[in-house]
Amino acid sequence: MTSKWLNEIKWDEQGLVPVIAQDAASGEVLMFAWMNREALEKTAAIGQAVYWSRSRRKLWHKGEESGHFQKVLEIRTDCDNDVVLLKIEQVGGIACHTGRKSCFFQKLDEGTWFAADPVLKDPKEIYK
Amino acid sequence: MTSKWLNEIKWDEQGLVPVIAQDAASGEVLMFAWMNREALEKTAAIGQAVYWSRSRRKLWHKGEESGHFQKVLEIRTDCDNDVVLLKIEQVGGIACHTGRKSCFFQKLDEGTWFAADPVLKDPKEIYK
Repeated sequence: MTSKWLNEIKWDEQGLVPVIAQDAASGEVLMFAWMNREALEKTAAIGQAVYWSRSRRKLWHKGEESGHFQKVLEIRTDCDNDVVLLKIEQVGGIACHTGRKSCFFQKLDEGTWFAADPVLKDPKEIYK
Repeated sequence: MTSKWLNEIKWDEQGLVPVIAQDAASGEVLMFAWMNREALEKTAAIGQAVYWSRSRRKLWHKGEESGHFQKVLEIRTDCDNDVVLLKIEQVGGIACHTGRKSCFFQKLDEGTWFAADPVLKDPKEIYK
């Protein structure tokens, strides 16, 4: 299998590309993370999202601790080839480490951020 | 009006935050760009997306050339306060400079990127 498609991605100066994970069924944006070349290659190979953790500086197979894996149904890139969009099926229905469906649960209202979406599962129950 | 909510965003070392623009009605992810503090403040103030153009190094009021402004219906941030999600109404139904609805029109199939979505309007007709 050629890796020409990986060469076509414009990796940034750190060798990374921003990645948006979107629920394939509902369209909800679930999370945002980063991938390096190896992470994107693995994601395509195994059909599950593998990110690059910038804080831990290692590959991060999403769900490895929580069980909340992301089945990748579609991989897209944008007009500049410098952002990746994944259409996924979120195992367990929870993408966020706070126990919410989506990481984007904070909404601006009257100049204040507030948590607009419910916690579906206590994080203590997710990360044992 | 307080700017406390702007202080709560974790700006990166360049003073920027990644921004995802999503069609509020269809859920389609339309584009990805960056904002600095001034851009996000303006976006909230005028109710239209104002980005920071990293290539031109200046504020970029989306639509200023194309007429394809983005009406901002909702501003969200994620669990780490380091990504912004806009729910928008895309004026003209075209977010991409290629004349497509979404910038994310390239889909990976059998190890090759291909343009999966149609051009709705010739860019020559958009940028006169």
